[in-house]
Amino acid sequence: MNEFELIQRHFVTPNTLGAGAMRAPHVLLGPGDDCALIQHTAGLAQAVSSDMLVAGRHFFEDTDPASLGHKALAVNLSDLAAMGAKPRSFTLALALPTVDDAWVGAFSRGLLRLADTHQCALIGGDITRGPLTIAITVMGDVPLAEALRRDGAQAGDDIYVSGTLGDAALALSWALDDPRTAAAKATLSATDRAAVVERMTAPTPRVALGLALRGVASAAMDVSDGIAGDLRHLLAASRCGATIQVDALPVSAAVRDLPIEVRRQFAFAGGDDYEILFTAPPTAAPHLQALCPKLGVKITRIGQILADTTLTLVDANGQSVTNSYRGFDHFPS
Amino acid sequence: MNEFELIQRHFVTPNTLGAGAMRAPHVLLGPGDDCALIQHTAGLAQAVSSDMLVAGRHFFEDTDPASLGHKALAVNLSDLAAMGAKPRSFTLALALPTVDDAWVGAFSRGLLRLADTHQCALIGGDITRGPLTIAITVMGDVPLAEALRRDGAQAGDDIYVSGTLGDAALALSWALDDPRTAAAKATLSATDRAAVVERMTAPTPRVALGLALRGVASAAMDVSDGIAGDLRHLLAASRCGATIQVDALPVSAAVRDLPIEVRRQFAFAGGDDYEILFTAPPTAAPHLQALCPKLGVKITRIGQILADTTLTLVDANGQSVTNSYRGFDHFPS
Repeated sequence: MNEFELIQRHFVTPNTLGAGAMRAPHVLLGPGDDCALIQHTAGLAQAVSSDMLVAGRHFFEDTDPASLGHKALAVNLSDLAAMGAKPRSFTLALALPTVDDAWVGAFSRGLLRLADTHQCALIGGDITRGPLTIAITVMGDVPLAEALRRDGAQAGDDIYVSGTLGDAALALSWALDDPRTAAAKATLSATDRAAVVERMTAPTPRVALGLALRGVASAAMDVSDGIAGDLRHLLAASRCGATIQVDALPVSAAVRDLPIEVRRQFAFAGGDDYEILFTAPPTAAPHLQALCPKLGVKITRIGQILADTTLTLVDANGQSVTNSYRGFDHFPS
Repeated sequence: MNEFELIQRHFVTPNTLGAGAMRAPHVLLGPGDDCALIQHTAGLAQAVSSDMLVAGRHFFEDTDPASLGHKALAVNLSDLAAMGAKPRSFTLALALPTVDDAWVGAFSRGLLRLADTHQCALIGGDITRGPLTIAITVMGDVPLAEALRRDGAQAGDDIYVSGTLGDAALALSWALDDPRTAAAKATLSATDRAAVVERMTAPTPRVALGLALRGVASAAMDVSDGIAGDLRHLLAASRCGATIQVDALPVSAAVRDLPIEVRRQFAFAGGDDYEILFTAPPTAAPHLQALCPKLGVKITRIGQILADTTLTLVDANGQSVTNSYRGFDHFPS
């Protein structure tokens, strides 16, 4: 099977899962030419984001390919969600060490299933030989004035985060046989354990929440490297500071039962969460509370924006907690 | 230096080379948020293409980083050119084995210099650690009715190609110490040799030609894997065949002096040429001839489209040449 047959077979041929994603009306010309041709909604800004996942760094070489296909797109959709953008189109560049037809088939199923869920069309890309690497570029629509940028937080705004934090860090810790989490792994039911692992292998991008936050949130970003690092970028862009109630960070039962220092580490600096961190004026609180049941997503207030540019952590009693946490950095100095 | 400093320093901070590329009016929000926000020309279709370059496969690990930055964008701009699209924006995903500040600086200079030439704005991307890999997604504008697709060739159309073919194959052959080309390497002047090598390391995307072919060419594609393979895709899409005069393929003096079999191999199936292969009705010939001096690009008629779906090669005397040539395939079966 050559490069063209491989693409044709798994990424272009309509199938029950992929057909919808291939045939969106805004796709004027799909894969197979030098370029795809698209036409998104006139008058809207187009949000664009690219992420690259490398085997052995962002995922284990032997990761289930369907989960990997899902996750590779999910982390990109999470960027659109954090911008308040509606997913429309994406491209996929894929380097593969060998052609394993079953692997590519499972990968494309996971990828296209999530693409279909969000009506995000695979419009083109590239497949080449090389160390397993996945690069996706997503495009979505958003009215310019309602885009959720990082630079709009104001002193007095509440700080919120969606879902729970630290589950992916716990799952990674289990995979690496970290002794700090061995007890938790042993005591959890198989179902609860699987739920934690799924947060790492198949995160859910908060697309509906991102759309609902248009015109509501003053600033937003996705949590991919841990709040400890990510929040600093939002604060720097907005030129302000914050107080975070470190024990108010929303966690699953599995993370809640960890030793306090490990729990704080995972929830505040674990990474791979793909939740939305956002700010909103206190007047928005009732509206946000009403959103939760409607969207089926938990939203938790975790702190407040301050005028001065410091970041302070406090515990449940309001006592200051030393902040020695660092978000994930691909090139630590 | 961490990931964010690296991006800020080499890809976001305005500098003499990069400033123009960063500040195009259609870029509403540049790098630094979850997504970039762009707004291209209303009413036009958007052409999108992605290419991935892997060290050791598409380029030598020790390639000059400025050339590599140029080439990584050039091969993507070549896809826009072959669609008749005007370059507007691109994203860059980069995996680096280590942080070498000088290397990244030179890479970004080569990349942004070409981006500025074509007023194509770097709007975002991702830098991560991993085996050296470059994935670029380019976006450009084209009126839908004038897009140069692969499927419009008609029986009786002339077949043309821009520039010269086979230089990059010759340069690669030298780099691999291929004995078939040792004589050519020894006899060429240093200037001529450098010109051949530059075709491999820093190809020129035929953007102006692509724009000039809007409404003129009946079909077009870029030649990246060699005409032997690429032409088949155009013929399949257009459901027709062709006769190619294999000795009429345009070649540089360096390639012309090679043994005939090597010359044909390089010109017809060498790959990495990034020229535009296109078809046009015979009535367009005078217009095309007038274009060459205006654009400073050679255009050569190399054959004709046939109604039946065979591909025939003939020599200068009209004698049939056995076609055992194959274009480059990343996953040969």
